[in-house]
Amino acid sequence: MLLSEIRGPEDIKERSIEELEPLAAEVRQFLIEKLSVTGGHLASNLGVVELTIALHYCYNSPQDKIIFDVGHQAYVHKILTGRMDQFDTLRKQNGLCGFVKRCESEHDVWEAGHSSTSLSAAMGMALARDLKGEQNKVIAVIGDGALTGGMAFEALNHIGHEKKDLMVILNDNEMSIAPNVGAMHNYLTKLRSDRNYLRAKDEVEQLLKKIPAIGGKLAKTAERLKDSLKYMMVSGVLFEELGFKYLGPIDGHDLPGLIEAFHQANNVSGPVMVHVLTTKGKGYSPAEADSFKWHGITPYKIESGQVLKAVGNPMYTDVFGKTLIELAEQDSRIVAVTPAMPGGSGLLKFAERFPDRMIDVGIAEQHAATMCAALAMEGMKPVYAVYSTFMQRAYDQIVHDICRHNANVMFAIDRAGFVGADGETHQGVFDIAFMRHIPNIVLMMPKDENELRHMMKTALDYNDGPIAYRYPRINVPGVELDTELRSLPIGSWELLHDAEGPVLIATGPMVQVAEEAAELLKRDGIQAAVVNARFLKPVDENMLLELAHRGQHLLIIEEVSIAGSLGSAVLEFYAAQGLSGLDISLMGVPDRFIEHGSIKEQLKEVDLTSEAIVREVKHHRSATHSFGLANKL
Amino acid sequence: MLLSEIRGPEDIKERSIEELEPLAAEVRQFLIEKLSVTGGHLASNLGVVELTIALHYCYNSPQDKIIFDVGHQAYVHKILTGRMDQFDTLRKQNGLCGFVKRCESEHDVWEAGHSSTSLSAAMGMALARDLKGEQNKVIAVIGDGALTGGMAFEALNHIGHEKKDLMVILNDNEMSIAPNVGAMHNYLTKLRSDRNYLRAKDEVEQLLKKIPAIGGKLAKTAERLKDSLKYMMVSGVLFEELGFKYLGPIDGHDLPGLIEAFHQANNVSGPVMVHVLTTKGKGYSPAEADSFKWHGITPYKIESGQVLKAVGNPMYTDVFGKTLIELAEQDSRIVAVTPAMPGGSGLLKFAERFPDRMIDVGIAEQHAATMCAALAMEGMKPVYAVYSTFMQRAYDQIVHDICRHNANVMFAIDRAGFVGADGETHQGVFDIAFMRHIPNIVLMMPKDENELRHMMKTALDYNDGPIAYRYPRINVPGVELDTELRSLPIGSWELLHDAEGPVLIATGPMVQVAEEAAELLKRDGIQAAVVNARFLKPVDENMLLELAHRGQHLLIIEEVSIAGSLGSAVLEFYAAQGLSGLDISLMGVPDRFIEHGSIKEQLKEVDLTSEAIVREVKHHRSATHSFGLANKL
Repeated sequence: MLLSEIRGPEDIKERSIEELEPLAAEVRQFLIEKLSVTGGHLASNLGVVELTIALHYCYNSPQDKIIFDVGHQAYVHKILTGRMDQFDTLRKQNGLCGFVKRCESEHDVWEAGHSSTSLSAAMGMALARDLKGEQNKVIAVIGDGALTGGMAFEALNHIGHEKKDLMVILNDNEMSIAPNVGAMHNYLTKLRSDRNYLRAKDEVEQLLKKIPAIGGKLAKTAERLKDSLKYMMVSGVLFEELGFKYLGPIDGHDLPGLIEAFHQANNVSGPVMVHVLTTKGKGYSPAEADSFKWHGITPYKIESGQVLKAVGNPMYTDVFGKTLIELAEQDSRIVAVTPAMPGGSGLLKFAERFPDRMIDVGIAEQHAATMCAALAMEGMKPVYAVYSTFMQRAYDQIVHDICRHNANVMFAIDRAGFVGADGETHQGVFDIAFMRHIPNIVLMMPKDENELRHMMKTALDYNDGPIAYRYPRINVPGVELDTELRSLPIGSWELLHDAEGPVLIATGPMVQVAEEAAELLKRDGIQAAVVNARFLKPVDENMLLELAHRGQHLLIIEEVSIAGSLGSAVLEFYAAQGLSGLDISLMGVPDRFIEHGSIKEQLKEVDLTSEAIVREVKHHRSATHSFGLANKL
Repeated sequence: MLLSEIRGPEDIKERSIEELEPLAAEVRQFLIEKLSVTGGHLASNLGVVELTIALHYCYNSPQDKIIFDVGHQAYVHKILTGRMDQFDTLRKQNGLCGFVKRCESEHDVWEAGHSSTSLSAAMGMALARDLKGEQNKVIAVIGDGALTGGMAFEALNHIGHEKKDLMVILNDNEMSIAPNVGAMHNYLTKLRSDRNYLRAKDEVEQLLKKIPAIGGKLAKTAERLKDSLKYMMVSGVLFEELGFKYLGPIDGHDLPGLIEAFHQANNVSGPVMVHVLTTKGKGYSPAEADSFKWHGITPYKIESGQVLKAVGNPMYTDVFGKTLIELAEQDSRIVAVTPAMPGGSGLLKFAERFPDRMIDVGIAEQHAATMCAALAMEGMKPVYAVYSTFMQRAYDQIVHDICRHNANVMFAIDRAGFVGADGETHQGVFDIAFMRHIPNIVLMMPKDENELRHMMKTALDYNDGPIAYRYPRINVPGVELDTELRSLPIGSWELLHDAEGPVLIATGPMVQVAEEAAELLKRDGIQAAVVNARFLKPVDENMLLELAHRGQHLLIIEEVSIAGSLGSAVLEFYAAQGLSGLDISLMGVPDRFIEHGSIKEQLKEVDLTSEAIVREVKHHRSATHSFGLANKL
């Protein structure tokens, strides 16, 4: 076993190039075995085995900075930098992170989770290096999908202008998570088919010799003609025009070829782009055959490739996708827009059924949002289907283009709340706080799948501006579905069951947690009411006024940041009404980032459980609240 | 006078092409005269006189959609679509908006204020058109500066892929607001120098004929060679590679040439890019000579070009720029980063003094933010100097790259609060709400220029993560400056003057307004205390606890959205402390967009005046607050 002897990158450099290939095979085997138990991002990591080995062979991490875009393809890097023994804990609470993580290793120099940040990071590190007069290399590894994100282009534009020494490795596997779209993708496809261009160089030179000598008026044109040959002999014109030296395309599974390319790249001054072709899932046939399915995978049987999935209710995502088809059958104005997540957003069947009304824009959250505004202004009913965390990219477009125009855009915000194993970069815990203060928008969250369906109908019927429904990354509770879809009155909450004691005001899955808490409290003789705060904006002012009259303890329970979310909306409303003397507890996500683990563990970590609600109610009843009391005197 | 006969675009179409040139001259004269009184965006509008006339001559607005990126270059469009008579009210409250405004005219189909949205808008409108089976043209007019914004590239990538019929007019004046930077700019410069490419076409074809017929092995190469000639005959390879048909470059002041180009473009199926070269300030020599200064201009004397500026204290922006130089003299880690606003952000002198430490990334707020994170992680002290409203574009990068990494990035947030004449697209009223819920960040706002300087020192000395100071677009009060800069204790407020009555907790310029209110209240025998809430996050918990003990009316006064800002932070803190029975009023910007006018008018519109504070205090004292009282019983 070579792999067991690799405790860090220095152990790779000692090997001969010939030994690296068996090492690659061992890494691959290790990944296939470990992930069959833990699950994780298999396909992308199998694709970069040779690339990562070659990088650590040629460069000196951590002095040389190796920056992985998104970072879910850094498992091989983790294996090679001393973390092999921790793979049993992958993506588990307090275990190895599924992304690059600075606190795990000095070799992890840049964290991500959202795509397209690596080029900006590389530029910052190159600038700092030069200002400090240091000499290290800076290398960004970015996928072809991530390259379509707008900020990657902003960085290319800046890097190409400043001419800093840095290296971009374009890891081209023709995929982001889903098959890639966009003109850039078409362009890369052309480059791939041009693999043999360089070999044509001799032929071209022969051909040129056959062109007769030309004088006079045509001389300049002939010169231009010769110039234009660079477009023929050198691929990557687009990158060259943007100021990069382009090398490639290189076979990303050919170790000697990669090492040779990196040596070439080292001799280039200024920015260089090495275009590397890799195959997602390489070396494991089920993953090669369906790299989309095997992007992020649950545990599986290695021999058969059979995926072991827990049997259970459908996900909220599935209910969304199915209901959207039902609605779209009846309303031809509905258009679905996704930033590169047709599968994750539950839209694959919609795309089959309505190919013209399914718009995948690539990794382009900003463009997607603004385009939705324009679609709405022209009478369509766009549904922007997006993960809560990725929607952060479109904040300005939501303010400036959608809400300011008061455009009838519907948001289907998936992965709202905790997301589990993907951890802190992916938690959907800010969207209420970053949307609630924007004028004109309506925000909803259902307690179950039946309510989600009514909310989708509500959004479709609503014609007064933008409206959003958000739902979590969990299985639905499995309630009975109403046959008829209906609109909910905007801003209306639901008093699920009434009682004389404390009032548990909850939203989304927290409604069920509140109901469980009410049951527990009942055993202690405390009768708690439960309210389904299904509208986060506007809040149900009538109900809030009625609840204020009761003089009971009110608890706002939500799986998002306490700062700026529903709890603060309630407090603001009561302040605006001049209502004081109310006893209100805010339960939600505290002011820090919550790391990976299961959703259940994450909820427990921040006290969003029925037990914690019971504790809060009881603590409140026993506390003297001296300031509050003193103040009332 | 031709111009006086133009009541709408139909009146232009009736004219002969020959009559359009005198019309252009009249439009130009009109702009120079009107803006000499009102001020406004002169240079960019003088640059697009012929372009706008040609557009309305060739297309049928509003059926054909003409979309102006940013929209400050739409004055000519406004003149030609029936709004000539309203130019005396330009950018005044209830007057003509300085940007495109849908409620003003059916010819205004898309509003903006932030750059780079027009291509996404055009794509949405083209998609809607095709889904509805309509036939209209869709035309986006975008500057070369706006083209560097990431979302413009996201849109190019999508448009080039989908091959929808739409037209992009690249209005290339080599400027955004400041001279343009970036690889794309370099590329456009090359295209400009290639103006005669098309003319070479005949010559090339002659040349090709001279190449002997070739068979066998070389045949394919010869075919490739012919293919490569398109790179020679057609400029704009980069755009062609992205799926656009490229036409240009065209002289943007040559009316017949423009009209001819539009006719050509109409014959292209799929996306077409018309590259038009314009001169900012065209036809008015002071503006042509310094289009940077004349981008947005105050009133001026027409003959001399002398700008009439009110004499007064320097702007906060100036104090920031000057102080940053002082700090940077002593600390070589300081690097200033601006997204295309070196002048507006007060950094021109810094750039002269420290050219290597001044990084203008172009219109690229996202890249700028993430690059700052990397600079900080490599030991530099980056200052991200950005307008509050444009920082909205970097929300995700602030969350994911700066705050999650807890990187020592300093934010200099300019134009915080109301901005006056630029209106609703530019108001800096959301930044507290969209930043306060992000873990790890510190947020400050000074009451005067002396405090701003101490805050800059505080930020520099702070090494525990990101820290921001925000300041308004107004003149400083003109207080005495301390000679020694010092760090303020993080989270500390200032009890400016104490009294037994209501407590006015204010931030930034509202502190002065609160002091004025305290004076007014004194006349009525009410002794109000005034607190300078100079930290928006963290809040001063000790002071808040002390104030809670008093049992007095607390007013939080801030020039940002009430929802989610300092007021809600205070309410959340008290709720977390279990403190009830407090009488708190939140005064700030209500839940709607605030249109253009003077800052004073905007403050008055939302009751952020000393008189309004007095009213709120008195109203509170007289009100029965029945619910609150009932609840206390």
